[in-house]
Amino acid sequence: MDDGRILATYRVASYLPLDHAAAVLAGEQSSGTFTKVALESDDLMRVHGARVESIEKNETPIDPLPGAVSAGAGAPPSVATVAVSFPVVNLGPSIAALLATVAGNLYELRELAAVKLLDVEIPDALAARYTGPLHGVGGTRRLIGNPSQTMIGTIVKPSIGLTLDQLEALVRELAEAQIDFIKDDELNSDPPHAPLTDRIRVVMRTIRDVADRTGKQTMYAFNVTGDMDDMKRAADLIAVEGGTCVMAAIPSVGFSAFAELRRHTDLALHGHRAGFGAFDRSPSLGIGFRAFQRLARVAGADHLHVGGINSKFWEPNDAIVDGVRAIQEDRSVGAPMLPVLSSAQTAATAASTYELLPTPDLLVLAGGGIHAHPGGVAAGVQSMREAWHAVASGHDPRMIATPGSALDVALDAFGS
Amino acid sequence: MDDGRILATYRVASYLPLDHAAAVLAGEQSSGTFTKVALESDDLMRVHGARVESIEKNETPIDPLPGAVSAGAGAPPSVATVAVSFPVVNLGPSIAALLATVAGNLYELRELAAVKLLDVEIPDALAARYTGPLHGVGGTRRLIGNPSQTMIGTIVKPSIGLTLDQLEALVRELAEAQIDFIKDDELNSDPPHAPLTDRIRVVMRTIRDVADRTGKQTMYAFNVTGDMDDMKRAADLIAVEGGTCVMAAIPSVGFSAFAELRRHTDLALHGHRAGFGAFDRSPSLGIGFRAFQRLARVAGADHLHVGGINSKFWEPNDAIVDGVRAIQEDRSVGAPMLPVLSSAQTAATAASTYELLPTPDLLVLAGGGIHAHPGGVAAGVQSMREAWHAVASGHDPRMIATPGSALDVALDAFGS
Repeated sequence: MDDGRILATYRVASYLPLDHAAAVLAGEQSSGTFTKVALESDDLMRVHGARVESIEKNETPIDPLPGAVSAGAGAPPSVATVAVSFPVVNLGPSIAALLATVAGNLYELRELAAVKLLDVEIPDALAARYTGPLHGVGGTRRLIGNPSQTMIGTIVKPSIGLTLDQLEALVRELAEAQIDFIKDDELNSDPPHAPLTDRIRVVMRTIRDVADRTGKQTMYAFNVTGDMDDMKRAADLIAVEGGTCVMAAIPSVGFSAFAELRRHTDLALHGHRAGFGAFDRSPSLGIGFRAFQRLARVAGADHLHVGGINSKFWEPNDAIVDGVRAIQEDRSVGAPMLPVLSSAQTAATAASTYELLPTPDLLVLAGGGIHAHPGGVAAGVQSMREAWHAVASGHDPRMIATPGSALDVALDAFGS
Repeated sequence: MDDGRILATYRVASYLPLDHAAAVLAGEQSSGTFTKVALESDDLMRVHGARVESIEKNETPIDPLPGAVSAGAGAPPSVATVAVSFPVVNLGPSIAALLATVAGNLYELRELAAVKLLDVEIPDALAARYTGPLHGVGGTRRLIGNPSQTMIGTIVKPSIGLTLDQLEALVRELAEAQIDFIKDDELNSDPPHAPLTDRIRVVMRTIRDVADRTGKQTMYAFNVTGDMDDMKRAADLIAVEGGTCVMAAIPSVGFSAFAELRRHTDLALHGHRAGFGAFDRSPSLGIGFRAFQRLARVAGADHLHVGGINSKFWEPNDAIVDGVRAIQEDRSVGAPMLPVLSSAQTAATAASTYELLPTPDLLVLAGGGIHAHPGGVAAGVQSMREAWHAVASGHDPRMIATPGSALDVALDAFGS
């Protein structure tokens, strides 16, 4: 749909008839208030009113939200997937205005016992205002020297507390092991013991030094999550120092700040999703990943975290697979975004991940899977590389691992 | 607590022992990963580790989140209020870095069957980086000519679709009725039929014109919710045109952008909370209002929406009262923030609101309660003014309303 309307899809539950509940949602988010007002003409409603496009009832039970008005009979609420369209002309258009429309006061409606934004189509008028991802999958590959395989990365661990000297030694070892990508932990922004500006200088000097000798361009995503001006200044310094990537936690900074960072810099933008669980983990409330990834893409994320297969987090594997598919299928604006798998990834998880996601267009991050390798981080990197090379070639890593090799040790250490 | 630590309070539920679940949360949000890594020294843990400060079990049942690991016995999860402290030196400090720490990946933990951030203390090191509210209650009162009573406002209705001519006529009528405050609806940002820049010029010309004759300075909160640069440009234009207030939906733009708007402008900042329901409506997940209002204050909101007594929305009255108290009690940074009551407010609701919130330091917004008054919007304003004057003087509006007066008509039209 883009006949001048924005289509948003919700999971809705209500104790009231579903068509009534959906109409309340549409009214609240367009021209309505709780009572008919003076200037609310039929013409105005026709041009600016939201419209319920479809209601598909389903039988999945859900936990109802508090405060929902009940018909009193004691029956559970009805559940449905409801599509609502909003006139594009109601909006700015901006991501923030879109959010206020499709994810605003509607969460508060007493007529609804569940309301979760599952997906939202980005209208052309909105997409035209943003570049979207500048680098995406292909651009990221080019920036790290065109590896043909799955891209392998890590998170600096421990998350916080490393001195600049420790960080330098760690980055050197990782870069010399020819890792594709390193990122700060999302908790590590600009602490006094390792200020971001110092971190940028030390890390980039190290990466340049290794690259001069080996030719390998490791991408380092500096976590700039913070205030707007500080993020911009950090991005500028990263560019000056020859860096290629900047990272921010999108839920922490918000979409407007993230989009502004995109406008300000042409570095690759690594979109962390720390805090997204607050939106997504309840089936009854919030914003689902398909909607989130669309907004992240429009805001300009080149990379987006999507969880991990068999991770330490709550999401089942089919949700992760669906998230990666959502990213892969979306061609709305800019370059194809690169899905980032993270959390409890090791050489031992490559096979199960590749089985569900048989594509090289992934960035797989192993934190403990590299830093806790018994042979050290270089062996950790090697084990990940070998495991992913094996699975992409159709082999079971356990079958081809040379006894005593980095891969073999990793499979022993991390395999279940 | 501010011995260099940030105290955050959560509602937590778990099928596992609560001390274990709380320790996992603390570990995940400070130096931990899923396995012990090479450089994770005891010294590092001592300086940078988060600490579980208290666990107060309670018996309130909650709906468990999906994906929680269960001991398998079929028993419901235990619920507790858990206080966790984080070293200030782990942070930037910035609001976004604080969010990544206290409201980041923890929502995804399988060990937790509920996790909601209830409150967070703002450390001095963080507060010192922000001005907080510049105007707040007292400054807002001064900007609108020092009314001693509860401040009365309205939202332009219909929310969207009014032409500039219609808007001008409506604003003129409201300003001539000496209303204290008018705001755009949160859905009305920068639509093509009434672009924000034109709206600013037309509205401010009208308000200046009325003020020249009556002396009444009506405050108009223009909804600038959008991209960063557009918000700044709009704020500049508002200032040039003699306006006093700018509004943004904090959940829609995000805290980093809102704080940047604060840095950019000294206009009063009207903090809308459209979308906050996605954080707060589930008792099992998200961010509660006490935490939200602290972050909004630090980010610089002069006014903050807090729902309405007997509103059309889901929140029970005690939650609204608690929200107003949270705002009133917090003196962490800047001027005292002004609580904004909204949603289904009319002259008929003044008595029940004042009974629960006996303070003049409120901004009460009536949308339909003014625009749907049978006598027109001027009568709507008058009815609100009279009702609030009555309740603040200890009278029941129904007892003192002159038959046929604006108040009397409003009580008939809106009273239940």
